[in-house]
Amino acid sequence: MSYQPPVRDHAFLLRDVLEIEKYANLPGFEDAAIDVVDQIIQEAGRFTAEVLAPLNAVGDKQGCTWNPDHTVTTPKGFKEAYAQLVAGGWPALGADTAYGGQGLPHVVNLSFSEMSSSANMAFSMYPGLTHGAYSAILNGGSQAQKDLYLPHLASGNWGGTMNLTEPHCGTDLGLLRTKAVAQADGSYRISGTKIWISGGEHDMAENIVHLVLARIEGAPEGVRGISLFIVPKFLPDADGKPGARNPVFCDGLEEKMGIHGNATCVIRHEESTGWLVGEENRGLALMFVMMNEARIGVGLQGIAQAEAAYQAAAAFAKERLQGRSLTGPKNPDGPADPIIVHPDVRRMLMDSRAVIEAGRAFLFWTALQGDLAHASPDEAVRQKGNDYMALMTPVVKGFLTDKGLKVCSDALQIHGGSGFTEHFPASQYMRDVRIALIYEGTNGVQALDLVGRKLAANGGRAVMGFFAELDAFVAANQDDPALKPFTEGLADAKAKLQEGTMWLMQNGLMNPDNAGAASTDYMHLFGLTALAYMWALIAKTCQAKIAAGDTDPFYATKLTIGRYYMQRVLPDTTGHLAKLTSGSELMMALPAEAF
Amino acid sequence: MSYQPPVRDHAFLLRDVLEIEKYANLPGFEDAAIDVVDQIIQEAGRFTAEVLAPLNAVGDKQGCTWNPDHTVTTPKGFKEAYAQLVAGGWPALGADTAYGGQGLPHVVNLSFSEMSSSANMAFSMYPGLTHGAYSAILNGGSQAQKDLYLPHLASGNWGGTMNLTEPHCGTDLGLLRTKAVAQADGSYRISGTKIWISGGEHDMAENIVHLVLARIEGAPEGVRGISLFIVPKFLPDADGKPGARNPVFCDGLEEKMGIHGNATCVIRHEESTGWLVGEENRGLALMFVMMNEARIGVGLQGIAQAEAAYQAAAAFAKERLQGRSLTGPKNPDGPADPIIVHPDVRRMLMDSRAVIEAGRAFLFWTALQGDLAHASPDEAVRQKGNDYMALMTPVVKGFLTDKGLKVCSDALQIHGGSGFTEHFPASQYMRDVRIALIYEGTNGVQALDLVGRKLAANGGRAVMGFFAELDAFVAANQDDPALKPFTEGLADAKAKLQEGTMWLMQNGLMNPDNAGAASTDYMHLFGLTALAYMWALIAKTCQAKIAAGDTDPFYATKLTIGRYYMQRVLPDTTGHLAKLTSGSELMMALPAEAF
Repeated sequence: MSYQPPVRDHAFLLRDVLEIEKYANLPGFEDAAIDVVDQIIQEAGRFTAEVLAPLNAVGDKQGCTWNPDHTVTTPKGFKEAYAQLVAGGWPALGADTAYGGQGLPHVVNLSFSEMSSSANMAFSMYPGLTHGAYSAILNGGSQAQKDLYLPHLASGNWGGTMNLTEPHCGTDLGLLRTKAVAQADGSYRISGTKIWISGGEHDMAENIVHLVLARIEGAPEGVRGISLFIVPKFLPDADGKPGARNPVFCDGLEEKMGIHGNATCVIRHEESTGWLVGEENRGLALMFVMMNEARIGVGLQGIAQAEAAYQAAAAFAKERLQGRSLTGPKNPDGPADPIIVHPDVRRMLMDSRAVIEAGRAFLFWTALQGDLAHASPDEAVRQKGNDYMALMTPVVKGFLTDKGLKVCSDALQIHGGSGFTEHFPASQYMRDVRIALIYEGTNGVQALDLVGRKLAANGGRAVMGFFAELDAFVAANQDDPALKPFTEGLADAKAKLQEGTMWLMQNGLMNPDNAGAASTDYMHLFGLTALAYMWALIAKTCQAKIAAGDTDPFYATKLTIGRYYMQRVLPDTTGHLAKLTSGSELMMALPAEAF
Repeated sequence: MSYQPPVRDHAFLLRDVLEIEKYANLPGFEDAAIDVVDQIIQEAGRFTAEVLAPLNAVGDKQGCTWNPDHTVTTPKGFKEAYAQLVAGGWPALGADTAYGGQGLPHVVNLSFSEMSSSANMAFSMYPGLTHGAYSAILNGGSQAQKDLYLPHLASGNWGGTMNLTEPHCGTDLGLLRTKAVAQADGSYRISGTKIWISGGEHDMAENIVHLVLARIEGAPEGVRGISLFIVPKFLPDADGKPGARNPVFCDGLEEKMGIHGNATCVIRHEESTGWLVGEENRGLALMFVMMNEARIGVGLQGIAQAEAAYQAAAAFAKERLQGRSLTGPKNPDGPADPIIVHPDVRRMLMDSRAVIEAGRAFLFWTALQGDLAHASPDEAVRQKGNDYMALMTPVVKGFLTDKGLKVCSDALQIHGGSGFTEHFPASQYMRDVRIALIYEGTNGVQALDLVGRKLAANGGRAVMGFFAELDAFVAANQDDPALKPFTEGLADAKAKLQEGTMWLMQNGLMNPDNAGAASTDYMHLFGLTALAYMWALIAKTCQAKIAAGDTDPFYATKLTIGRYYMQRVLPDTTGHLAKLTSGSELMMALPAEAF
């Protein structure tokens, strides 16, 4: 069975759980009436399933081809699909109307993004990074730069990239060496080699706009001397059309475990022409605009691959006949029962659903906070939105991709030996999703960002606000017997998260290694608690539907999966709390040479 | 850095922890004096590091090639390495002296097996499966069959395979259709297609002996009608030399996620000639001789890949300069600190070591039980050895491979973006190890074997014996303050395991779905407890060395890692117990069509 976009789940989240109609008075949302959103989701489902999904295995098997003239040929069918993407206006969904976009809220755009990533992760990275370049210029570019580049990036007519990493520097951008020399005409000459540039060269767009971190001659060392430049593959001519070839060349492609359909390029800037974005030496802050957006997008990839892998596994489990149910034949006329009768297969399917559905809710909920931070006229709402976006971004990225890998691995496992062969899609999902735990900051970097930066920001305002929100939910609903499994589970998780937070505050400052040693377990404890909250919100919505007489089994199914989450996933909080409060002593005790 | 065989760790386990010299009076062990064993380990390390490890990446990149004449070409260098393997007598290490083997205990042979699997998993599967075929004939074959085949299989001069799976039947062998028709000369004609036959065809041995499950015409349906046959690729002539080609053909190779260097064959028996092994319709029991041995070998692969991946990650973490320590620069003269200064990197390295070292001890300890079951003159010791082998086999297979994947994934993670590229070995280790969770019975099948069969066997004698052994250790050592972290951790884990066991006894019989729903969490709870016991044994050994004045930091390091295990790995027992005792109700609540 091929990928079936979860349109019903998306509509349910946006309409019923997040109730985006409540915000119809806000800019962006006024065009997002729920029936319009429904239509977009339907169309997104159709496009991704019909156009992108059939190319997923093709991209994996063919990969991209580097040609000696420094061009890159994408897998068969990608170019045509990209043209359809642009023609359909999909890249423009969330872009500003001033630059030809449709100006819809980010949370609506996420629905399309998830589906395209499920259908074809490698393909969807091309428009994904283009949108990142769009955002960086929108936030930091001059009006002239915006006018020149944003319409092309919004439409997808031109592609965009992030040029950060160099061979000796990934996480530690302070080490970067790419050089920028100011020219009399206000431009710069950029020299240096960048690696792991996703979509750095391809044959699908008429131009590619590189956003490049480099050090202006004479700039300070470290992160305070890094500037951001626009380096287009073809220099725009007087009419803004692609003109002379800029000497920014793809010198080769990485051979990778997955996402073969995406061109991961070595990019050489041979005195390429670039233009400064924003101020000198302030490039990192602008790059973080792209980076934070990209981190949400990577968390989304975790859920998207998990969804697609889960679907493949569920279909396989219903078709594959092998063995008999422990409680007697369920398919007595067949040679064996479908393997979905086996509890351990169910366990993996239920674990997956429990994480995917609440993980998606968490992703959408976080994106909505971003929209409110941007659009609300209410200062308090904007502040809360900003607080939450900052706090949740590392959790969305780190926790959801860790869980995404787990779901993809379980989906492969459900396929048995077939899963290990490349005739079934499970291997590709697992290989593709693996990068999501690494790029845009490894999950360890996310965890450290969470405990080292985000928790303490503004005196802990964001996390305290989150605790208060959870407490308020529990207080308001704990007397509802139908919601008891949810309020109890949430209250317990929140208590553990609060205990972990207090431990960090007491022990992390005294010894930063304690914070580092606790970080990943804390991030998981946080993610598990956030998903418990999402299940509580979903359960409340479903319970209300059922109380109002709606007999659609959709709602009862959600309640079952949510209760399963509380019973079978949430107990991991105990282990995480025990580990994170055990300190760094033993972890750091051995000298490096003992390893 | 290339793979460094852990010779010191192996010698320490065999000599100091398991004290194999205690058994010098037993058959097999009399030739395994500790200095002989030391020499074997040293040589095994040299051979695997120098001959097999350099071919690991070659095998992954080239894979095997199927030729239209039904032959298979192995990757460049494999054939020569195989010749060296045979010339060195390595396959004969654990084989019976009656058939040209060296008759050493299995536990000594494991040392070589682990190193060859670390060095080159795909390659090591060829002799691994050959040994399985050897064991099946040794256990079930006639004397004539033993005399004809065993010397060739023991030497590795001929290869061996297991022909079980068919397209429609893997786990559920009762469905198999391959047909055997008796001939007047006592042989059978075998017809049918087998899939996923590891080493089913290759160019390294002068003959290949397939052990084939098939159904004799007229045999009962299901598992009671399955017989085992020897089907050699070349029929032995009157002198026992490879003669006429038997029509057993490789029709193609699987395209797989990993172990590319091993030929995974579709094997077509076109009225091939076979000879019955043992009795008619009793083939499954004989196949389980191979299968149980293979399961221990697969658990070993989990540890072996973990060891190799850990080594690569540790080397990378000591070399890669990126960022600064949270507690101030550790490499002030360099541009950045090596990433091993970061607690979260340490966490992954320490988690890995904590599981690998105790996992290896568990593997060796279990193999020793098998040796004692075989060689001890004491009926009680033999019974205990058999009990433990049966009980621990699914835990060794399922738990150690689950953990092996985790270690390989963490090792890839430590590499950052480099890990996702195929220029570093991390991707191959993770792709290779993934199959270990599936073949020879998926880990879910292992868990079900544990809770459904092994726990209850002989009225629970094996598990009760294990509990008594743990209690005895705790009682004997709890007053030793130096061992306190170990006795406390072990006592706590054992109490949880016992609680889980009781829950299963009370709830699993009543409703078998409860046993199935609990099985994987129970297997992990069991494995975590077993590894706690191994750490306790290791700690006691190290503590005694230190008390005796040995100042080698090797022992203090082990104590640190062991204490880390108790503090940072063992807390997972709480979550597993909570999950397994939550029952099957929610897991099984949804109808199949809800997935």
